[in-house]
Amino acid sequence: MKVKAAVAHRAGAPLSIETVDLEGPRAGEVLLEIKATGVCHTDAFTLSGKDPEGLFPTILGHEGAGVVVDVGPGVTSVKKGDHAIPLYTPECRQCKFCLSERTNLCQAIRATQGQGLMPDGTSRFSIDGKKLFHYMGCSTFANYTVLPEIAVAKIREDAPFDKVCYIGCGVTTGVGAVINTAKVRPGDNVVVFGLGGIGLNVIQGARMVGANMIVGVDLNPGRKAIAERFGMTHFVDASQVPANELVAHIVNLTGGGADFSFECVGNVNVMRQALECCHKGWGTSVIIGVAGAGEEISTRPFQLVTGRVWKGSAFGGAKGRRDVPKIVDWYMDKKINIDDLITHVLPVEKINEAFDLMHHGESIRTVVTF
Amino acid sequence: MKVKAAVAHRAGAPLSIETVDLEGPRAGEVLLEIKATGVCHTDAFTLSGKDPEGLFPTILGHEGAGVVVDVGPGVTSVKKGDHAIPLYTPECRQCKFCLSERTNLCQAIRATQGQGLMPDGTSRFSIDGKKLFHYMGCSTFANYTVLPEIAVAKIREDAPFDKVCYIGCGVTTGVGAVINTAKVRPGDNVVVFGLGGIGLNVIQGARMVGANMIVGVDLNPGRKAIAERFGMTHFVDASQVPANELVAHIVNLTGGGADFSFECVGNVNVMRQALECCHKGWGTSVIIGVAGAGEEISTRPFQLVTGRVWKGSAFGGAKGRRDVPKIVDWYMDKKINIDDLITHVLPVEKINEAFDLMHHGESIRTVVTF
Repeated sequence: MKVKAAVAHRAGAPLSIETVDLEGPRAGEVLLEIKATGVCHTDAFTLSGKDPEGLFPTILGHEGAGVVVDVGPGVTSVKKGDHAIPLYTPECRQCKFCLSERTNLCQAIRATQGQGLMPDGTSRFSIDGKKLFHYMGCSTFANYTVLPEIAVAKIREDAPFDKVCYIGCGVTTGVGAVINTAKVRPGDNVVVFGLGGIGLNVIQGARMVGANMIVGVDLNPGRKAIAERFGMTHFVDASQVPANELVAHIVNLTGGGADFSFECVGNVNVMRQALECCHKGWGTSVIIGVAGAGEEISTRPFQLVTGRVWKGSAFGGAKGRRDVPKIVDWYMDKKINIDDLITHVLPVEKINEAFDLMHHGESIRTVVTF
Repeated sequence: MKVKAAVAHRAGAPLSIETVDLEGPRAGEVLLEIKATGVCHTDAFTLSGKDPEGLFPTILGHEGAGVVVDVGPGVTSVKKGDHAIPLYTPECRQCKFCLSERTNLCQAIRATQGQGLMPDGTSRFSIDGKKLFHYMGCSTFANYTVLPEIAVAKIREDAPFDKVCYIGCGVTTGVGAVINTAKVRPGDNVVVFGLGGIGLNVIQGARMVGANMIVGVDLNPGRKAIAERFGMTHFVDASQVPANELVAHIVNLTGGGADFSFECVGNVNVMRQALECCHKGWGTSVIIGVAGAGEEISTRPFQLVTGRVWKGSAFGGAKGRRDVPKIVDWYMDKKINIDDLITHVLPVEKINEAFDLMHHGESIRTVVTF
């Protein structure tokens, strides 16, 4: 079938809106009509050429929502007409990782996904007979895409696509890191580094579970107002505190240090600060941000021997097929706020403007609709 | 009163057996007759002068066992005649740390303990009227010592002092790291770096809780036999594997990586290997070894974002007044083996030989008796 897609022909070039060919779903696959998709920093990272695993030409996008229009043989968990969100972290419920119950990092289709291919080792997208790579197993920058069944989360039908698409990545990454990875408890003091889309979702996750202090740290005081609206109780303007005093400042502010800290920037120096501002004895720091290729974190081991814990979170520790529908419910029940994070909505024809808005720091999240 | 002590007059010099003055216990303090004490690497570290917090002149030793001979006003948890083990990590049950239930790092007397003093800011030891510093709140290299009540674990009276003194540090540090810090579960695969006294205790802790593979890693194949006796199932001779292949070798051996790894060396490069040999998704590495002053650990944050967890353990995460008596029971019930770890027993007059044995790698643990 012919579909409309924003094609990334090569790194560093703008996306180009084109008609491409999409094969229908094979066994165990689902054809999804994408109604809306967020544009995320990870898309920009790959498009920039800095992602060492980036493959071109490709159809980017991994934060979508839409409607199932066809299913291949053997698909049982969704049917035509179901509303769904694609999962770049699938949930097969059969691999060693899923069965461990200790992680959300299903590895069932990881190898082929990393190669930009469907699980059978081929691509469904082409243009003039030339293969296009899938991206993160999703490729949501197209009005139709094909997904493995294990990468499809069925959601309720009254949820608006142009809002809940954000649950496909940013919302779940932030809220899930609080709930699944950190397991923040009522009364805990939480410190969040970076008040972009992820950080704001960490903040509202912390508020939802009853955290006590929710401290936001950012170089940009322009983020203070919206962070407060999402639950931030204290703001630290990192541009006004010398870098070598920031840890002591936060430890003092929190009466001993964070019970949990979250790094939502992707800066290895900030990751160290986030660890070291944790409370002696038990404070746990969760890395969410993605550092540049080859960059390393470091600290003195004494920080860990005296009880701090260093961990990370991917896709908020969420098991997508069960957790994404729950977060959609939370949005519909107004337990979490997505509307105020979606600062811009554009038709797909203007998708390159979404990247410009991101690079200029003017958007929190831009959603593109088809 | 006059007591016999091995005095450390200054860094780098041998200990000198002398008669020193000991004041009796003040309010909330306990006078303990030390019957036996282990000689630990930490004593050697401080004696060497490399410990930036080392204070001289002092009476070293922190791994003792003995009998209560007097108590000061207000002491209720032990009485004259009780057998006891001194705790360098006390358990006040009242400070923020104890009450958190998330850590064993009681901070009630930390400031004065770090200054080599009793909680009231004074020392009980002197020689010719000149103050001697206490050490780690214990100073077990003397046939009598004074301890805060919260630093005394009452133990059963049929336990032999020259064995259970080792529970005052090494045994608890290793076994406790498995049970309290890592919480190893039956069937887990465990990797232990360093087969000295701590590593061997980690191994027997892992065996006790039903671990599956227990892999030992050491540069010295001479440790293989005793490690196997303590429960090691697989040995990796790190002198025979190139350093840059060690992680892959262990990941392969364990079918994906360690569920838990333990660093019992104190080498920051080994700490990195211990983290990176952990299983993707959930593997947790516990640092037990003490690195040199100012040394740092590092890794790529991707290691954590993909699910590995980096933490540390001090005194095995044990809450001493309740956990030390339990471990004494385990020894008496033959659930753990201490006898084979105590390779040498010397009278206190020969205490300097204990340090020589340690430095030459000839001992696992030397116990000194009074």
